[in-house]
Amino acid sequence: MKRDKLGLDRIVFFSDAVFAISITLLALDLQPPLGPQPNRTASVFVELLPEYQSYVISFIVIGLYWISHHHYFRFIRRYDYTLVAINIGLLMCIASLPFATSLLDTYGNHRGVVTFYASCMVVTGLMKTLLWQYAAHNFRLIHRRLSRQRIRRLTRKAMIPPAVFAGSIAIATVNSDLAKMSWGAIALVLL
Amino acid sequence: MKRDKLGLDRIVFFSDAVFAISITLLALDLQPPLGPQPNRTASVFVELLPEYQSYVISFIVIGLYWISHHHYFRFIRRYDYTLVAINIGLLMCIASLPFATSLLDTYGNHRGVVTFYASCMVVTGLMKTLLWQYAAHNFRLIHRRLSRQRIRRLTRKAMIPPAVFAGSIAIATVNSDLAKMSWGAIALVLL
Amino acid sequence: MKRDKLGLDRIVFFSDAVFAISITLLALDLQPPLGPQPNRTASVFVELLPEYQSYVISFIVIGLYWISHHHYFRFIRRYDYTLVAINIGLLMCIASLPFATSLLDTYGNHRGVVTFYASCMVVTGLMKTLLWQYAAHNFRLIHRRLSRQRIRRLTRKAMIPPAVFAGSIAIATVNSDLAKMSWGAIALVLL
Amino acid sequence: MKRDKLGLDRIVFFSDAVFAISITLLALDLQPPLGPQPNRTASVFVELLPEYQSYVISFIVIGLYWISHHHYFRFIRRYDYTLVAINIGLLMCIASLPFATSLLDTYGNHRGVVTFYASCMVVTGLMKTLLWQYAAHNFRLIHRRLSRQRIRRLTRKAMIPPAVFAGSIAIATVNSDLAKMSWGAIALVLL
Repeated sequence: MKRDKLGLDRIVFFSDAVFAISITLLALDLQPPLGPQPNRTASVFVELLPEYQSYVISFIVIGLYWISHHHYFRFIRRYDYTLVAINIGLLMCIASLPFATSLLDTYGNHRGVVTFYASCMVVTGLMKTLLWQYAAHNFRLIHRRLSRQRIRRLTRKAMIPPAVFAGSIAIATVNSDLAKMSWGAIALVLL
Repeated sequence: MKRDKLGLDRIVFFSDAVFAISITLLALDLQPPLGPQPNRTASVFVELLPEYQSYVISFIVIGLYWISHHHYFRFIRRYDYTLVAINIGLLMCIASLPFATSLLDTYGNHRGVVTFYASCMVVTGLMKTLLWQYAAHNFRLIHRRLSRQRIRRLTRKAMIPPAVFAGSIAIATVNSDLAKMSWGAIALVLL
Repeated sequence: MKRDKLGLDRIVFFSDAVFAISITLLALDLQPPLGPQPNRTASVFVELLPEYQSYVISFIVIGLYWISHHHYFRFIRRYDYTLVAINIGLLMCIASLPFATSLLDTYGNHRGVVTFYASCMVVTGLMKTLLWQYAAHNFRLIHRRLSRQRIRRLTRKAMIPPAVFAGSIAIATVNSDLAKMSWGAIALVLL
Repeated sequence: MKRDKLGLDRIVFFSDAVFAISITLLALDLQPPLGPQPNRTASVFVELLPEYQSYVISFIVIGLYWISHHHYFRFIRRYDYTLVAINIGLLMCIASLPFATSLLDTYGNHRGVVTFYASCMVVTGLMKTLLWQYAAHNFRLIHRRLSRQRIRRLTRKAMIPPAVFAGSIAIATVNSDLAKMSWGAIALVLL
């Protein structure tokens, strides 16, 4: 259980870099789907809209995970190599989100792909919950002055997204559009 | 409204990383347009010139946004998650600029694309203005000792580029080359 | 032999960035190998499994090198430009690991490629050992209070992976699957 | 002329990130040139050698520029936005080096390309010299206690590479292989 400041900073820094690269690489998927002579102003916007829509959604999803990582790490004061390993597991999920999103983008109305995307989100969310649970258990790596109530609230908040996505996998066996709509519930619950 | 130093540092750091990745990825668009036997010295330079021209312009545009981000954040001392959200919105615009630029590069003489590029710049500029307005309003997140006059000057400066680009959208309905020339006005006004 | 804090921070930071970029770029290799109508849920998971398997393994390998870099640099307190040069050599190995891995992925049952991959790992491991040996020799760049015993333990630990991979090159001349299995020995010895 | 620590740190950080991304992206050029059945161990190494050779050289070139940036910035204590602009110009050169190198790689025996590569190196070297000259002139942005003699030595050292590359452009008009060999002179002079 190390307390060295630089060590913790490097972990946070490394995570930030992986988040930043993943989120910026999303722009590589923006492709000009224009015909050879895109002369009419309106048509350019209409043609580019779906491109940007998926870019914006993915950016917001990874951005929210970054904010959440930022938020939870504010309470973490020490580290051990188990925390580092869990954190790398979380980053592995984050870095693969652009792929899962582009898959959903291309095959959005197929049940298998919707289930796959939801599974990715479940695993990512569980990783975050695990990270927090490990750090907070008996104040293992967090600040002593954090109240038990607050810790529990943070745990609950971490568990909402994976729970909703797990539920949506069940819904997807009936209707995949309904499953996608259920994802909106996360926004409603978290706000 | 948090005051923790590490929290603000991570936001600045994350932004820097996104800027750095976006600006460096511009180089991926450099493509050797050479024929099989580029023997003559002069012709190599002539063929590579347009490649480099668009690279240099995009690099300068993103570089200027980074300088501006650097400049405005020097006055920001605290953060809340609204600021983080606006900042992520700004980064989303920045990360998509290489795409907008390459679009302009390929279809530069089409009015729709010129309008699209100008719209991207308007949104990016407004995001920056919003970030500053939010932070500076009633000294919400900035240093108390900043004079009201200076705050207003910084707000005005942030609003010039989106205003010019918005004007150029109107000009583009008449003539898209004229619209592009009007963008040079930003350099004149800001210097 | 410089002691300036910022100088050492930049070296660590630069290394972290190279690690983070290399590990995140692994996700670019994730390709949707799906047919046009991936309707059945199970088949999507089955088809994506090999993609993810190689992604996860490569992520863990680079992640372990990062943890190890993090661990060894905690003891390094000063730097000189020889250390910087060795560190850049190590980063050169790290940045090329995704290529070596994708090669192994594609031609995994060919002896030449297995030998090539093992050689890459030997060179990377030797670089790390060299870095540590250079820094630790006569307490050149490390903390004085580190016991000689601990230094030796760290040296031994750094030498295990290259030794195992070197051994697997010999094994590969007989059987390349056996060679690959021998790599698992590293996990056993290090845990 | 600002003295704020965070401001200077961000400039250094942003530069490090651009260097790190440029140097890591070099690995994207590593391509498996293997035939369908690379069974013989020796042939795999022989086929991959030229790939790695150009990767290693480019990595060392950018690595040396990073070391040099690291070295010169140790003496810079303040910044103004002219320094920031010159630094962005230098980064623009650095980020385009992988392209210039891959060009040299593909068309290495054509005089025009050799001249182009040497010109890139001249511009990059001059940018670095300009950065240093601007910062050091009348101790504008550097530490006061630096001796004039040391400043001059650092200036001379910065000017050697662009001078050699400029000379090689003249040599290339006669023989491009001789020009390439002359680049080795830099290593000899700097060591």
